[in-house]
Amino acid sequence: MGILSKPIKTLNDLFVHTLHDIYYAEQKITKALPKMISKVSDQQLQSAFLTHLAETEHHIARVEEVFRMHGEKPKAVTCPAIDGIVTEAEEIMGEASDPEVLDAAALAAAQAVEHYEITRYGTLIAWARELGRPDCAGVLQQNLDEEKATDLKLTQLAEARVNRVAV
Amino acid sequence: MGILSKPIKTLNDLFVHTLHDIYYAEQKITKALPKMISKVSDQQLQSAFLTHLAETEHHIARVEEVFRMHGEKPKAVTCPAIDGIVTEAEEIMGEASDPEVLDAAALAAAQAVEHYEITRYGTLIAWARELGRPDCAGVLQQNLDEEKATDLKLTQLAEARVNRVAV
Repeated sequence: MGILSKPIKTLNDLFVHTLHDIYYAEQKITKALPKMISKVSDQQLQSAFLTHLAETEHHIARVEEVFRMHGEKPKAVTCPAIDGIVTEAEEIMGEASDPEVLDAAALAAAQAVEHYEITRYGTLIAWARELGRPDCAGVLQQNLDEEKATDLKLTQLAEARVNRVAV
Repeated sequence: MGILSKPIKTLNDLFVHTLHDIYYAEQKITKALPKMISKVSDQQLQSAFLTHLAETEHHIARVEEVFRMHGEKPKAVTCPAIDGIVTEAEEIMGEASDPEVLDAAALAAAQAVEHYEITRYGTLIAWARELGRPDCAGVLQQNLDEEKATDLKLTQLAEARVNRVAV
């Protein structure tokens, strides 16, 4: 969630506010990922980040679609959680001197970002259904599925490769 | 991760730093949960938060055990990610005027906290194994299992009850 734009009186207000929040988070990620891509060494990790950057652009378009379907203008509100997660990622990647250790740190940071998005999309989908908007839930589910797939891919990369060479 | 206490040169440095981070996060949660418990109305949600508060005390003790097993002193470093997640939770709960909407917001905030812990414990376990410390991984796995169980319980509560009455 982020800095509040208007009072939260109903579940619909909460749903729209959380849409503002994830809209901000997705935009923040499109700015953070290119920096991460430029710093990592592992080719598979770089490739996973590049794929996810392209997916994130689609996620933004889908969130905009949900705003329109729900009769709201797309709007972002500052989200301290994603700001904190990205700040941590930048700190740790700025400090890791060894390339393989930096890759392991970048991968862990990316998974923290994924988990934030997974929890927010899960919540938004539940609320959309309760609000009688299965159409909005369906669009958001596409984003959730891609976030989960990215997290799984990162786990597999972590287990199979990056950590092994970083010891 | 948090404000860096020393340079990150090896995977072991990264592992110890992330232990400092989760140690801070767990302590932050023991301070945030009582405030959430005092604000929510739903009995099942209140009970889930109370159970998780007791579990969190065990998580802190287990992280301290891993510090000792690994020859390190228990130490916390400020973690902007959990600070941001808790700030958001406090903001949204301060704004929600309707008790059922506040419960839905509190539940979503708690799930964001759980997902942060899930990703960090997942990472720590993978790194502990790579560092040849399956004993540390085993202790951390107990915390991860409980975090996942809490997240699942919150999802079930959200779907079955809180959202339904909040529309």
